[in-house]
Amino acid sequence: MNEAAKTLDGWYSLHLFYAIDFTSLKILEQSERTAMVEEFKAFINTLEDNHVAKEGSYALYNITGQKADLMLWLLRPEMKDLTALENKFNKLAIRDFLIPTYSYVSVIELSNYLAGDSNEDPYENPHIKARLYPELPRSEYVCFYPMDKRRQGEDNWYMLDMDHRKGLMRSHGMIGRGYAGIVKQFITGSVGFDDYEWGVTLFSDDVLQFKKLVYEMRFDEVSARYGEFGGFYVGNILTVNDLQDLFAL
Amino acid sequence: MNEAAKTLDGWYSLHLFYAIDFTSLKILEQSERTAMVEEFKAFINTLEDNHVAKEGSYALYNITGQKADLMLWLLRPEMKDLTALENKFNKLAIRDFLIPTYSYVSVIELSNYLAGDSNEDPYENPHIKARLYPELPRSEYVCFYPMDKRRQGEDNWYMLDMDHRKGLMRSHGMIGRGYAGIVKQFITGSVGFDDYEWGVTLFSDDVLQFKKLVYEMRFDEVSARYGEFGGFYVGNILTVNDLQDLFAL
Amino acid sequence: MNEAAKTLDGWYSLHLFYAIDFTSLKILEQSERTAMVEEFKAFINTLEDNHVAKEGSYALYNITGQKADLMLWLLRPEMKDLTALENKFNKLAIRDFLIPTYSYVSVIELSNYLAGDSNEDPYENPHIKARLYPELPRSEYVCFYPMDKRRQGEDNWYMLDMDHRKGLMRSHGMIGRGYAGIVKQFITGSVGFDDYEWGVTLFSDDVLQFKKLVYEMRFDEVSARYGEFGGFYVGNILTVNDLQDLFAL
Amino acid sequence: MNEAAKTLDGWYSLHLFYAIDFTSLKILEQSERTAMVEEFKAFINTLEDNHVAKEGSYALYNITGQKADLMLWLLRPEMKDLTALENKFNKLAIRDFLIPTYSYVSVIELSNYLAGDSNEDPYENPHIKARLYPELPRSEYVCFYPMDKRRQGEDNWYMLDMDHRKGLMRSHGMIGRGYAGIVKQFITGSVGFDDYEWGVTLFSDDVLQFKKLVYEMRFDEVSARYGEFGGFYVGNILTVNDLQDLFAL
Amino acid sequence: MNEAAKTLDGWYSLHLFYAIDFTSLKILEQSERTAMVEEFKAFINTLEDNHVAKEGSYALYNITGQKADLMLWLLRPEMKDLTALENKFNKLAIRDFLIPTYSYVSVIELSNYLAGDSNEDPYENPHIKARLYPELPRSEYVCFYPMDKRRQGEDNWYMLDMDHRKGLMRSHGMIGRGYAGIVKQFITGSVGFDDYEWGVTLFSDDVLQFKKLVYEMRFDEVSARYGEFGGFYVGNILTVNDLQDLFAL
Repeated sequence: MNEAAKTLDGWYSLHLFYAIDFTSLKILEQSERTAMVEEFKAFINTLEDNHVAKEGSYALYNITGQKADLMLWLLRPEMKDLTALENKFNKLAIRDFLIPTYSYVSVIELSNYLAGDSNEDPYENPHIKARLYPELPRSEYVCFYPMDKRRQGEDNWYMLDMDHRKGLMRSHGMIGRGYAGIVKQFITGSVGFDDYEWGVTLFSDDVLQFKKLVYEMRFDEVSARYGEFGGFYVGNILTVNDLQDLFAL
Repeated sequence: MNEAAKTLDGWYSLHLFYAIDFTSLKILEQSERTAMVEEFKAFINTLEDNHVAKEGSYALYNITGQKADLMLWLLRPEMKDLTALENKFNKLAIRDFLIPTYSYVSVIELSNYLAGDSNEDPYENPHIKARLYPELPRSEYVCFYPMDKRRQGEDNWYMLDMDHRKGLMRSHGMIGRGYAGIVKQFITGSVGFDDYEWGVTLFSDDVLQFKKLVYEMRFDEVSARYGEFGGFYVGNILTVNDLQDLFAL
Repeated sequence: MNEAAKTLDGWYSLHLFYAIDFTSLKILEQSERTAMVEEFKAFINTLEDNHVAKEGSYALYNITGQKADLMLWLLRPEMKDLTALENKFNKLAIRDFLIPTYSYVSVIELSNYLAGDSNEDPYENPHIKARLYPELPRSEYVCFYPMDKRRQGEDNWYMLDMDHRKGLMRSHGMIGRGYAGIVKQFITGSVGFDDYEWGVTLFSDDVLQFKKLVYEMRFDEVSARYGEFGGFYVGNILTVNDLQDLFAL
Repeated sequence: MNEAAKTLDGWYSLHLFYAIDFTSLKILEQSERTAMVEEFKAFINTLEDNHVAKEGSYALYNITGQKADLMLWLLRPEMKDLTALENKFNKLAIRDFLIPTYSYVSVIELSNYLAGDSNEDPYENPHIKARLYPELPRSEYVCFYPMDKRRQGEDNWYMLDMDHRKGLMRSHGMIGRGYAGIVKQFITGSVGFDDYEWGVTLFSDDVLQFKKLVYEMRFDEVSARYGEFGGFYVGNILTVNDLQDLFAL
Repeated sequence: MNEAAKTLDGWYSLHLFYAIDFTSLKILEQSERTAMVEEFKAFINTLEDNHVAKEGSYALYNITGQKADLMLWLLRPEMKDLTALENKFNKLAIRDFLIPTYSYVSVIELSNYLAGDSNEDPYENPHIKARLYPELPRSEYVCFYPMDKRRQGEDNWYMLDMDHRKGLMRSHGMIGRGYAGIVKQFITGSVGFDDYEWGVTLFSDDVLQFKKLVYEMRFDEVSARYGEFGGFYVGNILTVNDLQDLFAL
C-alpha cells in the first residue's frame, strides 16, 4: 500500500445527535416519563459497564442551540456492534421523543505523519493502544466537527508529496501540543464511511479553549489552505443523574 | 499562542430563532392562550432581572418574513448557563407553538487587530469590560448575520500576514466608526462553536442604516475579497407588553 | 459615505410566497371555506384601500409550478409596518391552509449609477418619487428573483472602481430600456435585510418578455461575469374576484 | 435585440413530479380508491382530447427511484393555462395522496444557433411549427433534467462571442443527430421562469440510449466546459389503463 | 460514437435506502408486526429466487448511523422491471414504517479504459458477462457512494484526451487490483439516470478495507484531481432470518 495512506485504526465510532421533542413529551403522564427515563438510564448504565470493562467507550452531552439537544458518542471493536447498539437504542421508549438530527460513522485513527521510524508493531505499543482504544474523558464540555482536506485548484492536499504533507502536519501538530492537558483531541477517520474524511472530537473543562485551539490552527497552512469544515456542535456533560431533571416538565 | 489568534472574549451568546405556529395556536382556548403568554412573560421578566443585575443580557425581536417570527438573544457568563436556559425555555407551554428555525452559538469577542500597545490587562479596562459584558440596547430594529473570512484560491484571509490583516481591518473599522451613535454593532466569535466564524448583531432605531452600513462595507477589501455571508435576519423590537397582542387571535 | 454605496431608498418591501394545502382545505365545510375566503378578500381590500390612498402598495399573483401557489407582495413606509401586516395575515383563517415556501425582505431602491449630476434633492424629484413609492401595476404576469453581484476570483464586482461599474451598468440599463412599455421592472435592495443583495420584480402582460429580457441581459458583462441568481418565480394575476374560485372544490 | 439572445418559442411547459403516499392510500376503502382513480383517468382523458386536438400536449410516466413516482408533463399555448390546469389537478381527490417533489416551468424553445439564413418567417415554416407545438411521443421511457451554461472563471459561456458559440453548438448538435430516430429530444427554455436556464426532456424506447447520448455529449466542449446539470429523472410510460393497477393495493 | 464514451452495460440497478420509523412500529400489535415482517420476508424470498435463477440479483444491508437503516439493492434486465419492483415494494405493509431517505438509479457498467484490443464481442466473453450480470456477494459489510468526474477550471476530466484518461485509469485500476479477494467492487453508470455520473458499491468481510481502499485511491490523480464524491453509506448484512429480530420490540 502507498505509504501516504497508512493509518492506525482502533475502535469503530458512531456519533448520534438528537433534538428532544418537548411538545410530545408533555403528552406523557409523569409516571410514564419517569419510567421512560429510568429505561434510558439503564441503557446508559450498560454503556458505562462496557466503558469500565474497557470493551468500548461512550460519552453523553447536552448540545447548545437548536442543531441538537443530545450527543451520544459510541465506540466499539466492530462496526456491526455499533449498528446493533443503534438498533437497540431505537427501540427504547425515549427514542419516540428524540428527533434524529445528525450522525457520524468513523473509526479512531492515528495518522502516519507523526509516526516514528522504529520497527516495532505499533499496535503493541501501550501508548498507541491507549489512543486507539481510548477511555473517553468526562470533561465539562465537548466539541465535534467533521472535516475534509481540500482538493481545489492550486490547493489540493492529495497532490502534495508525502514529505511536504509530513512537514505541514508536523507544524500543525505543534499547535495541538500547545493545548496538552487543556484540550483532549480524538481524530476519527471516515473516508469510505461517511461524507467527510475525518471527525474531530474535542474535550475540555474550559469551552473557550475549543475556540482558541481551532482559531489558532486556522492560521496554520494545513487548515488555512487545505481545511474544509462541516458543522460544529458544542455542549456540556450529562450524567445519568441529570437525566430525570432534563426530561422533567 | 500565535499573536494572530488572540482575542478578548466576554459573555457566551445564544441566538434563538422561532416561527410561530399560528394554526396550532387557534386550537387553544382564549384562557389557555392568555395563561401561556403570561408564563412566557414571566420567563422574559427573569431575563430582564438578570439584565438589570448585569449578570447577563438578552434581546427579543419580531423578525420580518418567513425565516422566523421571534429572535431571542441570550448572553451569560458560562456556556452551560445558555444550555440550561434553553432547556428551561423548551419546557414552557409557548414552546409547543414555536418552530425552531435557526440558532447561533458564540461568545462576545473583541479582536486584537484594533488593540492598543499598552501593557495593562485589557480585562481590567472599563471600556473593554463594558463591551465584553454588554447591556444590550432596546433599539427599534435588530439585524443578525453570521460570516466567515474567505479561504479560496488567491483570496485567502488566513494566509495573509498579520500586518496586512491589521491594515485591512483598520480601514474596515473606519467605516463602522462612521455609523457611531446610529448603529450599535456586536461581534460574537464562533470558531469551534458554530458553522460560521463570527456572528454580527446590529441595533439601530433606523432600519435603513443596516443596509447602508453593510453595503458600504461590501466595497471595502475585507468584505469584497474576504467576506462570506450566511443568512440575514431583520426585525423590530418586542416588549413584554407586546406579547399578549402578538399571540392574540 | 463612500460614493459607491449611495442609493435612494423608498418603501420597504416584503414578498411572501405560499403553497395552498388543498388536502386540508377539503376537510372544511363549503360554508366555512366561503367565510374563510371572504375574510381573506376583506384583508386584500384593506391592502387595496391603502394602495388607492398611495400609502403603500401590493400585488397578488398565482404562481406556476410547485414552488408556490400565491405570491403576495407588500410595500409600506416602515419595515415594522410590514412585520405587523405579516402578523395580521398569519392570524387569518386562510393562513392555516397556506404553507410558507419563501419570503424576501428588502426596500425599493434606485442605484446611483444612473444618477444625473444635478444638485437638486432627488427625493423632491417627482419622477424619482414615483419610482421610490410606486403604484404596483396590475399586469397579467409577474416574475420575481433575488440576485447578488459576484465576488469570486477575477470576477469581483466590489473590487471594480466606480467608473468601471458605472460604465457597465449604463450598457446594462440600455437593455432594460429596450423593454420600456413592455416590461416594468422594480429593484429592491436587500443588503443587510435578506440573503441576496437585490430582489428583481418584473411585470408584463406578455410572460415571454421576462425570458427575452433576462436572457438578453445574461450576455451583458454585468450579468455574464458578475450576476449570481437565486430562484425564479413566475405567475399570473389574481383579483379578489378570482379568490372564491381558486379555493372552491 | 442582441442576435445572441434570439430564440423561437412555442408552447409553455410545466413538468410536475409527485411521490405517491402509499401509506395514506391504504386508509381508503377499495371503492373510494377506485372512484379516485377513475376521476384521475377522466382528467388524463381531457389532456388526451386536448393532445388529439393539437391544442396542447402531455406525457405521463412512472419515475424510477425515490425522487418521484409520477411525472406529468403539460404543454399549453399560454402560461396561465398551465397555472389553471395545475389548480384543477390540485383539486382532484388523488392529489391528497401525491406529495409534490419537483416542478419545472419553461417554454418549448428552438435556439438560433442552428438557424438557417433564409428570410422566411420561421413561425410559418411547417418543420419548425411541428417542433414548437409538438405532439409528445408515447415512447417506452422518458428522461428529464434541467441545465445551465456555466459562467465560472475562464469557462464563461456568456462571454464567448456569437461565432464561437455557434461553432461549438454545431458540433454539439452533430452528436444529437447521431441519435436521430432513437432518442427524441425536446429543449425548453426557462431563463426568467425557473431556476435553471433550460430543461431537457428525452424520449426513447431504449432507456440505455439516454445514458449513451448524455455521456457522449459530456466529452463535447459545450457540456465538458460549459454544462452545469441539475437532477436527472428517468421513468417508463403510464397509460390510463395502467392507473387502476398502479394504485391498487 | 466517440470511442471515449463506449461502455459495456449490464443489468439495471436501483439502490433504495430507508430509515425505520420505530415510533410508529410501537403502535402495532405484536401479531400485526410479525405478520408484516413475514410478508416482507416473502418479498425478499422472491428476490432470492430471482437471484438463484440468475435473472437478476439483490442485496439487503443494515446501514449504520441516521442516514438510513436499510439498503435494498436491486438488479434487473430492464429498467421498467425495477420501477415495477419498487411499486410492489411500496405496497407492502412494512413500507408504512419505512421512511425513504435516498435512492440511486443506474446500470452495471464496465468502462472501455481497461478493455483489451481483441475483436471478439465482449458481451460473449464469459468473464465480462459474469461482471455485467453479477451474482451479488453476501459479504459481511457493504459500502455505497455516488461520484462524478470533475469539470472545474484546470481539473476537467472531460477535456483530457482519451490516451491521457486511459493512462490515469490504468494506474487507478492498479490500486483496486491490490484489494482483489478482499474488496469486491461494482461500478454502475448513471449519466442520464441519476444526479451523479457513477455509483460505487463495495463488498467486504472487513469493513476497514473500504476505508483503506478509498483513502489510498484518494492520493491517485484520478481521485485527487478529478473525483467529486456524494454521500457515503456503510452497513452490515441482513438475512431474512434477522428480520423478525430487527423489527421486534
